[in-house]
Amino acid sequence: MIVLLTDFGQSEYVGVMKGVIYSIDQDAKIVDLCHDISPQSVIEASWLLKNNYKYFPEGATFCCVVDPGVGTERNALAVKTDNYYFVAPDNGLLWETLKEQKIVDIRQIPIPEDASRTFHGRDVFAKAAANINKGKFDDLAEKVEEIEKLELYLNEREGIVVRIDRFGNIITNLFKQEDKDKYSVIINDKKFTLDFYPTYSAAMENELFLIEGSNNTLEFSLKNGNANDKLHAKPGDKIKIL
Amino acid sequence: MIVLLTDFGQSEYVGVMKGVIYSIDQDAKIVDLCHDISPQSVIEASWLLKNNYKYFPEGATFCCVVDPGVGTERNALAVKTDNYYFVAPDNGLLWETLKEQKIVDIRQIPIPEDASRTFHGRDVFAKAAANINKGKFDDLAEKVEEIEKLELYLNEREGIVVRIDRFGNIITNLFKQEDKDKYSVIINDKKFTLDFYPTYSAAMENELFLIEGSNNTLEFSLKNGNANDKLHAKPGDKIKIL
Amino acid sequence: MIVLLTDFGQSEYVGVMKGVIYSIDQDAKIVDLCHDISPQSVIEASWLLKNNYKYFPEGATFCCVVDPGVGTERNALAVKTDNYYFVAPDNGLLWETLKEQKIVDIRQIPIPEDASRTFHGRDVFAKAAANINKGKFDDLAEKVEEIEKLELYLNEREGIVVRIDRFGNIITNLFKQEDKDKYSVIINDKKFTLDFYPTYSAAMENELFLIEGSNNTLEFSLKNGNANDKLHAKPGDKIKIL
Repeated sequence: MIVLLTDFGQSEYVGVMKGVIYSIDQDAKIVDLCHDISPQSVIEASWLLKNNYKYFPEGATFCCVVDPGVGTERNALAVKTDNYYFVAPDNGLLWETLKEQKIVDIRQIPIPEDASRTFHGRDVFAKAAANINKGKFDDLAEKVEEIEKLELYLNEREGIVVRIDRFGNIITNLFKQEDKDKYSVIINDKKFTLDFYPTYSAAMENELFLIEGSNNTLEFSLKNGNANDKLHAKPGDKIKIL
Repeated sequence: MIVLLTDFGQSEYVGVMKGVIYSIDQDAKIVDLCHDISPQSVIEASWLLKNNYKYFPEGATFCCVVDPGVGTERNALAVKTDNYYFVAPDNGLLWETLKEQKIVDIRQIPIPEDASRTFHGRDVFAKAAANINKGKFDDLAEKVEEIEKLELYLNEREGIVVRIDRFGNIITNLFKQEDKDKYSVIINDKKFTLDFYPTYSAAMENELFLIEGSNNTLEFSLKNGNANDKLHAKPGDKIKIL
Repeated sequence: MIVLLTDFGQSEYVGVMKGVIYSIDQDAKIVDLCHDISPQSVIEASWLLKNNYKYFPEGATFCCVVDPGVGTERNALAVKTDNYYFVAPDNGLLWETLKEQKIVDIRQIPIPEDASRTFHGRDVFAKAAANINKGKFDDLAEKVEEIEKLELYLNEREGIVVRIDRFGNIITNLFKQEDKDKYSVIINDKKFTLDFYPTYSAAMENELFLIEGSNNTLEFSLKNGNANDKLHAKPGDKIKIL
């Protein structure tokens, strides 16, 4: 099974990657994890992968293409852990996900001479994922000893925005504090005092509030509305609980 | 076959549900019916399911997650009809679809203690759909006698907006009236007199007109434009033919 | 394998086509090439198909529905080439793609009496694609001798916008000129003098520049921004290199 994670949105770039994969392995099973990562947000992709890879069957190959450095000297990586495979540009995207797994092997994916300079999803990563899915991990090039780091976590009170979802919820990487039902938080230099509710339905119409999201971290939410139309946050913005 | 219908848009929530399904049944066949239901619009989901379920093969399991009451006491339902299976929150979403079928059995889906309070798509409905698809409908919990009703139909002249499509067409649940080629209609308290045309191409440039949509009901359309940029309708808005 | 290319966006129209296909052939393998073609842009669909069909396995059936003439007298076509099958309305969409292949047979797809007048994707093209995929091309109706032409190419210095991608890159059908690193171009009657860079990373923050896209043609790009928010181009707009 190959699981795709990109910032390609609804564009043809995803479909073309699937064409490339099926041309190598017509029996491949391809699943879309998500393609609406904010353009070039390695932070958002990193958060999403880390929180969701474990919902997929063991043996899955994750093909992750959020790649602001495409066409430069950055490496293309293929990683084998005890349970999964991952391919991605070496830009920190995999760091948080790999930290919690046993890494078995990391290899460099060779970049062909004739690869497009803007679309390694098609010419590098899709091909690598298809070959790994066919059991050819060991055919890959030289071993890599060190990869780029991207640490998302600061401390209990300081974190970042990691995702804006389609409802306009602003997802942070800060965990809920035990028994606390009111928070003073600073986001983008503005201070808010907000109630924490266990469910959406507990909030009042048009109230901005905090809730525990599906990955157990705090989310800014607006009852029957779009919290981010109000706060204009983006992945990477700093959050502080006072 | 499992058919997904949600308001999750392009978010990772759909991909994660697929991961959960494949983790239970690696051979599942999953099809996306639609994920761009207007956020939390049970009306739109109800309309869409009712009009489209019959295009899918017999035996399909529809997994429908438009769930404004997630985390509250509302039931999670699994329904077996003579031809299909359906899982959904008990909020009226299934009412119109079930009305036209023979219901064989309705069960409550147990909600695990550790289920997220915001994402039953992942922790409740995807799992139930996967198990039903594997033939385990009878393992579900207690029978349900009565479910929430959501009636979409009023009468021949009074209806509602049931869907805004990607072209900005405003789809209603009112049927065309025999041999009528001009309509006086009230939508959102504004009155319009509009021509009815059998095809898009019959309308004049920038003309607002009525057409019979793919589910045989009246649609507001704007030739080479977006009718809803002009009318600002949303699912549930009332329509009256004078 | 059936590959879908439409302008249906995230709507249910794509899901319903899949339901129709699976109802005819439950074992069909369906791939989404792209559904966010600009509404009714036959030019954009034509460009996309021409540049991407060859990434799919031989024998694939492309089901292309960008169909401003739906419900009129326009023909529905099924084409067999030496390597692929294509179904589409006869509006020029297939012209550029077929020009570079050996055409084996062109047939008219019969349009059933009870087909919707707005949704031939469901009632005509999905069915035809499913049947062709099952090996029933020869059951189709009469042969067609001539199809609509849509020529995208002008000359080395005059071309058109063929696609706006999700990052706001404006893709043209003009090829890069050897060793040229600065271009004077007219787009929408406005003249720009722009640097050409081999990679995104070579440009300066907020610089509008030209790059060679994944189909080897020139693209307008804005470093860390959206070029089309600045230029407001759309498929079909004329470009001239001075």
